[in-house]
Amino acid sequence: MKITGTFIDEISHDIPHQNWGEKEWDRDFAYMRAIGIDTVIMIRSGYRKFITYPSTYLIDKYGCYKPTTDLVELYLRLADKYGMKFYFGLYDSGIYWDTGNLQHEIDANQYVIEEVWAKYGHYKSFGGWYISTEISRKTKGATEAFRTLGLQCKTVSNGLPTFISPWIDGKKAVMASSAQLSKEEAVSVREHEQEWGEIFSGISGAIDAVAFQDGHIDYHELPAFFEINKKLADKYGMECWTNAESFDRDMPIKFFPIKFDKLRLKLEAAARAGYDKAITFEFSHFMSPQSAYLQAGHLYNRYKEYLQTLNF
Amino acid sequence: MKITGTFIDEISHDIPHQNWGEKEWDRDFAYMRAIGIDTVIMIRSGYRKFITYPSTYLIDKYGCYKPTTDLVELYLRLADKYGMKFYFGLYDSGIYWDTGNLQHEIDANQYVIEEVWAKYGHYKSFGGWYISTEISRKTKGATEAFRTLGLQCKTVSNGLPTFISPWIDGKKAVMASSAQLSKEEAVSVREHEQEWGEIFSGISGAIDAVAFQDGHIDYHELPAFFEINKKLADKYGMECWTNAESFDRDMPIKFFPIKFDKLRLKLEAAARAGYDKAITFEFSHFMSPQSAYLQAGHLYNRYKEYLQTLNF
Amino acid sequence: MKITGTFIDEISHDIPHQNWGEKEWDRDFAYMRAIGIDTVIMIRSGYRKFITYPSTYLIDKYGCYKPTTDLVELYLRLADKYGMKFYFGLYDSGIYWDTGNLQHEIDANQYVIEEVWAKYGHYKSFGGWYISTEISRKTKGATEAFRTLGLQCKTVSNGLPTFISPWIDGKKAVMASSAQLSKEEAVSVREHEQEWGEIFSGISGAIDAVAFQDGHIDYHELPAFFEINKKLADKYGMECWTNAESFDRDMPIKFFPIKFDKLRLKLEAAARAGYDKAITFEFSHFMSPQSAYLQAGHLYNRYKEYLQTLNF
Repeated sequence: MKITGTFIDEISHDIPHQNWGEKEWDRDFAYMRAIGIDTVIMIRSGYRKFITYPSTYLIDKYGCYKPTTDLVELYLRLADKYGMKFYFGLYDSGIYWDTGNLQHEIDANQYVIEEVWAKYGHYKSFGGWYISTEISRKTKGATEAFRTLGLQCKTVSNGLPTFISPWIDGKKAVMASSAQLSKEEAVSVREHEQEWGEIFSGISGAIDAVAFQDGHIDYHELPAFFEINKKLADKYGMECWTNAESFDRDMPIKFFPIKFDKLRLKLEAAARAGYDKAITFEFSHFMSPQSAYLQAGHLYNRYKEYLQTLNF
Repeated sequence: MKITGTFIDEISHDIPHQNWGEKEWDRDFAYMRAIGIDTVIMIRSGYRKFITYPSTYLIDKYGCYKPTTDLVELYLRLADKYGMKFYFGLYDSGIYWDTGNLQHEIDANQYVIEEVWAKYGHYKSFGGWYISTEISRKTKGATEAFRTLGLQCKTVSNGLPTFISPWIDGKKAVMASSAQLSKEEAVSVREHEQEWGEIFSGISGAIDAVAFQDGHIDYHELPAFFEINKKLADKYGMECWTNAESFDRDMPIKFFPIKFDKLRLKLEAAARAGYDKAITFEFSHFMSPQSAYLQAGHLYNRYKEYLQTLNF
Repeated sequence: MKITGTFIDEISHDIPHQNWGEKEWDRDFAYMRAIGIDTVIMIRSGYRKFITYPSTYLIDKYGCYKPTTDLVELYLRLADKYGMKFYFGLYDSGIYWDTGNLQHEIDANQYVIEEVWAKYGHYKSFGGWYISTEISRKTKGATEAFRTLGLQCKTVSNGLPTFISPWIDGKKAVMASSAQLSKEEAVSVREHEQEWGEIFSGISGAIDAVAFQDGHIDYHELPAFFEINKKLADKYGMECWTNAESFDRDMPIKFFPIKFDKLRLKLEAAARAGYDKAITFEFSHFMSPQSAYLQAGHLYNRYKEYLQTLNF
């Protein structure tokens, strides 16, 4: 299974920033393209007061800081140049995390979606929307919010595709700021199927693809969960993607590039489950030859060798 | 606001050592000089048994280990070469942290100050003293100790300037070894003003500048705290510097280079508050083109581009 | 005291993988050889389902994943090329850590040892065995297990040497996944001597060398513990090696290369105690010029300069 998409981690929650300028981003898109990546997803357009483009709305309404560089414009320009699709990740006000109330995310993004489409919708590479609020099975009210946000995106953009990337509430689903590596109460395959069946039923028609993060369960659990995910996606008319995490959740350093064989195991499990597409979180820190983490460049080389064995 | 000074983190508490030799240090001073840094501050001359210069006193009295290289001599020589001022950071016996008793720091440093001045005071670049015991508002007895240590330094060295770099007891004031990123009980602006007013009153005349660390409060809180700091410094006849931290306190990896826009926001807040000077903790790990953290070199480039927009 | 051996950290518990291919490993063996390393020790041949060579037995019996590369074959080939000895680290099923039962480790390794000897025993560089289950004084049943495993290795391989690398239950003996840096209840020198005397008495004849990890105690405690270790090793007819950790246990980032002077202090303490050999955990991440941690390359240079002062 070949990775054909990657997140771009702007604004980051937990991965230190690389401080790249245009030259480095241009080179990174070239590295991506060289291994067959045709889709880039900006993970979020903003988080609390930090934003990726000079949004009049967010600066006025949420007191956001004007960024030095308009990254949305930069990424769209580069996606045009390299013949890739760009997905825009919605704004995360942080209010939901503080209060449990999702209404703010819906309201803020109604404006953001319109603003962004008016400003950047003409770019050839503008290819879709990423509903960035990460959820898991326990997130109350998420279904309705995802449905609303997905429909807003599609309505404004003449039906451009939308996707989400939730996590499986597995044993490695612990906070990044925690020193723990795993937890006791992990969801069973049965619970996962039942709860996500309900969620998929609610978002069907508003969300076109679901890309479960693949790093919260153990490697031998992948087949069982992947089979359910694919079955549910088929049933509710969604594409089933895998979000193949290219960082290692098993190490006390949070987070460094993954060992190649772990990535391979996850991709092979997705292939066997008949998944439609593989994306990764994320190329620029964890797989790029110019990453500040030099392990990433070696992962790039190992991955390229692997592609050759598959005759890609 | 241009950064014109940097700490040198020897001996480090919490930032892994880069193991540089003279060649790397020489090159780093050149990189510093190229962006306008005219002041280097050795953060401490020793911590417990590890020391930066072969101190007869500390080896005999505290069982310190003789260092392979005399870093004080090296830094002074390089500061001479590059036309910079060198500030000497006092010794930290660790006893205060274990017992709450500051008397040991005062006694030990009385000898250290004399020894160092006798040994290195002739260097042209020897420009001042850094009272290295980091304190915050809750540190009992600190005022008197700071006064005593500052006066010792000035007396021995014919009045060379002294400074301190305390932290604001804000929500990010958590232990580096903690997995937490923030805490609930943060000091209010009013408490900060009242308590630091008392401390400044006590150290006035013995300490010439105060450089609050800028990383323990949130970005939108900077203006309020900076205004107080400047007002207090003016009132008590001290220079008001900012210690612009160039590492990121918001990430689970402790600590990596900061995202450029965060650094910019902090420098701009200091400029607006009329601060006298900006120093950083610290150049060599977090802003240097030869740092082991490659994000640092990119931060250097982003910062240089920023200086150009300011017409520095 | 010169470092003449290094672990190779495959499969790693807590150090992120560098994703090296044959080219990088070949170059690393050359770097090792250049500073006098004549012994490489593969720390374990597998941990739970991840293994270093395509073991028919482990894949069938423990559901292990077939590795992309046969690392045992690669390391033996390179050890042959560079004239080094290769020690094979036993398999760790993880069952002991989950259940406290060591019998699984004994049973699994009986097969592993035979399989490995049949497959790789003809390599000239196959020089010994590393009993990889790390223990400390509190590990119940360890003595008998170590004895059994050591004798299995020696019987199969016509008496090739065996060694262990336990840790001292000192104040820095905390979990890597913990945010803590030290603990209160550390073993005293007396307890250490008494308890390890019992263990050594039990393993004498089955284990040829013991290489205590040197990083769990404070630097000033090294002489007292090292003296005991050497005395015990002499008494029970074992070689006394030091496992000089080249990563820094004192930093919140777990784990980065150690400050050179710390490594020097530990090596000098081992030399003074009359130790027989120094190995390190481990060269490729923490001392190699091509490590992803650039501090490691500088440590390599500082160490080389140090060797010159010793006239090695």
